[in-house]
Amino acid sequence: MKRYFTLLCLALLMPAMSASAGKIVTSSLTSKILGAEVKYNVYLPENYSADRHYPAVYLLHGLYDSYTAWAEKGNMKIVVDELIGTGEACEMVIIMPNAGGKDVKNIWNGYFNMPGWSYEDFFFQEFIPAVEKQYNCGGCKGSRAVMGLSMGGGGSTVYAQRHPDMFSSCYAMSAWLDNKAQEVSTGSTEKDCFYYLSNAVREHSALDFLDNADEATLEKLRTVAWFVDCGDDDFLFDMNIAFHQKMRDRGVHSELRVRNGVHNWEYWHLALRWSLPFATRNFSK
Amino acid sequence: MKRYFTLLCLALLMPAMSASAGKIVTSSLTSKILGAEVKYNVYLPENYSADRHYPAVYLLHGLYDSYTAWAEKGNMKIVVDELIGTGEACEMVIIMPNAGGKDVKNIWNGYFNMPGWSYEDFFFQEFIPAVEKQYNCGGCKGSRAVMGLSMGGGGSTVYAQRHPDMFSSCYAMSAWLDNKAQEVSTGSTEKDCFYYLSNAVREHSALDFLDNADEATLEKLRTVAWFVDCGDDDFLFDMNIAFHQKMRDRGVHSELRVRNGVHNWEYWHLALRWSLPFATRNFSK
Amino acid sequence: MKRYFTLLCLALLMPAMSASAGKIVTSSLTSKILGAEVKYNVYLPENYSADRHYPAVYLLHGLYDSYTAWAEKGNMKIVVDELIGTGEACEMVIIMPNAGGKDVKNIWNGYFNMPGWSYEDFFFQEFIPAVEKQYNCGGCKGSRAVMGLSMGGGGSTVYAQRHPDMFSSCYAMSAWLDNKAQEVSTGSTEKDCFYYLSNAVREHSALDFLDNADEATLEKLRTVAWFVDCGDDDFLFDMNIAFHQKMRDRGVHSELRVRNGVHNWEYWHLALRWSLPFATRNFSK
Amino acid sequence: MKRYFTLLCLALLMPAMSASAGKIVTSSLTSKILGAEVKYNVYLPENYSADRHYPAVYLLHGLYDSYTAWAEKGNMKIVVDELIGTGEACEMVIIMPNAGGKDVKNIWNGYFNMPGWSYEDFFFQEFIPAVEKQYNCGGCKGSRAVMGLSMGGGGSTVYAQRHPDMFSSCYAMSAWLDNKAQEVSTGSTEKDCFYYLSNAVREHSALDFLDNADEATLEKLRTVAWFVDCGDDDFLFDMNIAFHQKMRDRGVHSELRVRNGVHNWEYWHLALRWSLPFATRNFSK
Repeated sequence: MKRYFTLLCLALLMPAMSASAGKIVTSSLTSKILGAEVKYNVYLPENYSADRHYPAVYLLHGLYDSYTAWAEKGNMKIVVDELIGTGEACEMVIIMPNAGGKDVKNIWNGYFNMPGWSYEDFFFQEFIPAVEKQYNCGGCKGSRAVMGLSMGGGGSTVYAQRHPDMFSSCYAMSAWLDNKAQEVSTGSTEKDCFYYLSNAVREHSALDFLDNADEATLEKLRTVAWFVDCGDDDFLFDMNIAFHQKMRDRGVHSELRVRNGVHNWEYWHLALRWSLPFATRNFSK
Repeated sequence: MKRYFTLLCLALLMPAMSASAGKIVTSSLTSKILGAEVKYNVYLPENYSADRHYPAVYLLHGLYDSYTAWAEKGNMKIVVDELIGTGEACEMVIIMPNAGGKDVKNIWNGYFNMPGWSYEDFFFQEFIPAVEKQYNCGGCKGSRAVMGLSMGGGGSTVYAQRHPDMFSSCYAMSAWLDNKAQEVSTGSTEKDCFYYLSNAVREHSALDFLDNADEATLEKLRTVAWFVDCGDDDFLFDMNIAFHQKMRDRGVHSELRVRNGVHNWEYWHLALRWSLPFATRNFSK
Repeated sequence: MKRYFTLLCLALLMPAMSASAGKIVTSSLTSKILGAEVKYNVYLPENYSADRHYPAVYLLHGLYDSYTAWAEKGNMKIVVDELIGTGEACEMVIIMPNAGGKDVKNIWNGYFNMPGWSYEDFFFQEFIPAVEKQYNCGGCKGSRAVMGLSMGGGGSTVYAQRHPDMFSSCYAMSAWLDNKAQEVSTGSTEKDCFYYLSNAVREHSALDFLDNADEATLEKLRTVAWFVDCGDDDFLFDMNIAFHQKMRDRGVHSELRVRNGVHNWEYWHLALRWSLPFATRNFSK
Repeated sequence: MKRYFTLLCLALLMPAMSASAGKIVTSSLTSKILGAEVKYNVYLPENYSADRHYPAVYLLHGLYDSYTAWAEKGNMKIVVDELIGTGEACEMVIIMPNAGGKDVKNIWNGYFNMPGWSYEDFFFQEFIPAVEKQYNCGGCKGSRAVMGLSMGGGGSTVYAQRHPDMFSSCYAMSAWLDNKAQEVSTGSTEKDCFYYLSNAVREHSALDFLDNADEATLEKLRTVAWFVDCGDDDFLFDMNIAFHQKMRDRGVHSELRVRNGVHNWEYWHLALRWSLPFATRNFSK
């Protein structure tokens, strides 16, 4: 009996216990559009069953990072498990695709189409259909959300602007929403991947999109639930504020929160506590 | 100019920026009492100078962990940097000593004196004097706090009970405060380290201490600021509640918070946001 | 133009603006069971329409208070408007019935049946059917929640224990869950209303209910979502903790939060920020 | 014994109990500068003694309100009591002077000098010296803070800009910081009090002040701790953001938080939970 207690005690202390315990699996997709294999992580909730249907959340990483960032640096699993445990987030499949890596000059980065690298085409034509079929999730606007940090916050916002029929909500964390500068390659003649990314961010400016939107476009934007979350000392603060103000001025409601913080993982780790309940509330009932 | 912007942008995106940026250094002390070398991590605030004096916080790890746990699993630096940046925590030196490791049966664990391993003696006679001299911190009750998680929450509480003249405050996270069971070694005849630890926790029960405290002892306990923080689904919940109730019934004020959560690093990571301001408020002005 | 601005400015500054703006109406029901008229307040969400159906929340006041307490002392409207505005709470009808008043000795108090005052019968047989018909709300377990403070927290808990088929969730704030003492009337011979209330609380002990529950009863309790919220310095702290522990030990999941606080309106005002989203999450989708 | 319990129970249930229990007293000062009597409320902490010295916080009300607003609409006492109880706010004297009233056209409003109503002169030459002498509080920059809502948030900010040697910190809630419009009286010829107030706000623009500040002025501003707190749906949002951005661009650190909310008492009631600890942290130790 007493030995039993000891072993029980050991067993109890060892793992972190949680009311819910999902798992993260790594997979990849061979893209014809990109001519490359794209890796991604997927969070599957506890007792995930392919026989049930789940909402899908696309959770995008930032520049210099990859598909592993949310799991490894963002510790997303411990937060998602807790939120699903209390019901603040519903059971969902969270997909974290690769769109970059550390070597920003020599490998492709970003969520937009660039010369020779049509990531947005890949994302909507190949990736979403494949993963939602494989994991029996998403499938329609009311069952799909997009969110991300920095470059991924910009990607989320632009995806929801250009595909408002695809997402019920969009949560942008410290988002890179615009890029006014004309970047040049660092070498004398060659244009590197970061050059093309910078161009793409400028050409996909979420601010310009709002300036140029006609009423029919605005009406579509109003079908998405928007949330902007950016630290008061973030170096991307001004563009996030400008986005919120432009949205308001064009009559598209957007939530905004400015917490204490800078452009770091503490800010984004805490953002999950709001973003996943926000996505949950905006899925179709 | 434009290239300058690119490089600036790269520089800005790469590191996590913070209003304050401390550093963690690893060191060790050769203990005569233990006959062993004890490793520890120290958080030093930005612009730390040995010419200035700082308050000292002892931040204790739990069973199965070591001196690296708060830095690596608890991500303590990012939280401390932020809290010092806003002034919610004052500039302080945070000391994270080793008191265990994964192999609980074969290596010594815990903060108490055990046959052949007098850790409490080491802590108060050797460790505190040495580190506070080396880093010019602490030095008196009003400038010293203790806190920790699980086994380290129990260690903190018992240290503050037995040495109330040494600490201005004590913050216990999901604390292992008592152990009623008589542990036996898992082998047939040999008593292992976990056996001795279990015994030591029982003999140093923070609950029994309160039951047995005379009025003079209680009066000393009232000079310490106490805080108990434990998740509603933590398997150590009952003993933390019992501690708070006994404290109240003996007239020693203690704060209590029960947040959603279990015995995991998400709970303790968030606990830092309360524990360090609490310690700060209770340092002598 | 400038004058227009001035007037606009005046108009803007004057009212508190809110994304959502419900209203509180006062009504009453003549009860045959009680032989009395029972007043109640009802919160109706912005653009309330009798043509739509709404979930119903019963929000119960405490001893010494009446049906006006949540509106006047708890400032419930400003919180509900905000939560509905963000979607954290769904559009709902909130019913605040009278069950007492200041003069606890000479007027009936409480939510239970007492000799000559069968409030529970009134509540389930007359009140719920009437208000849910009138306001087109509730109608079934999945569309109904109960919550309250102190005596009303006890009332909520006991109602959900005894009628688990009626409520999808129960949120108890600083709840009066038990009363071990045998109250006596303060006069020498006469038994006053507070005497009967005290008896009724003891006879309806939520703690005893759990001790006596058989497995079939427990299975029904598991169909309700439970939440206990009580301040660390509340004089009813121990019984709230005991309730959470008994629930856990009997295998009925219950959330527990202990925030800083005592038995006051600041605690309950803040509790609404959790209780209404909790009820919302647990309504049937 | 049992009757004793009953009475005890009654006694316990009746009042809201709190770890700390200050009181609010109403007083007035006859101003020679204004030629009028100015009423004010003062919060005195529990066990206030004229023999001890306290920090002073000036807590300013908004347009259409008076010196009673923070006590009656803001329920400030219950929050201050709680924060002092936990030590998050130090024991302090909080002064709430009158600067307006409902009839904005016919009675003087605002914190600035206007033709025939030199409120700023009154505030610094008569009011501060008198109340700090009477209540033995404040006395120097390190022991004095200013904060307020809307018109009082603007007043706080401008006071701290023009008298940076007088305040250790300034906390602006939903602040009215600027007024670009040239107001006209609503009557055809007469200029009313609101006309003069509007002019005064424009002439005391906190934004213009930053634009015009020389380096010596900025250096003084850096000796004050600044905090801006404004709801994402507040109609004064843009000017609060602009203020934070200008501060940052001129090298004066300012905290900013944007919570969910509009221009209402729920926002300001909650703001106290941050403003008083902020003031406390910035008093001289």
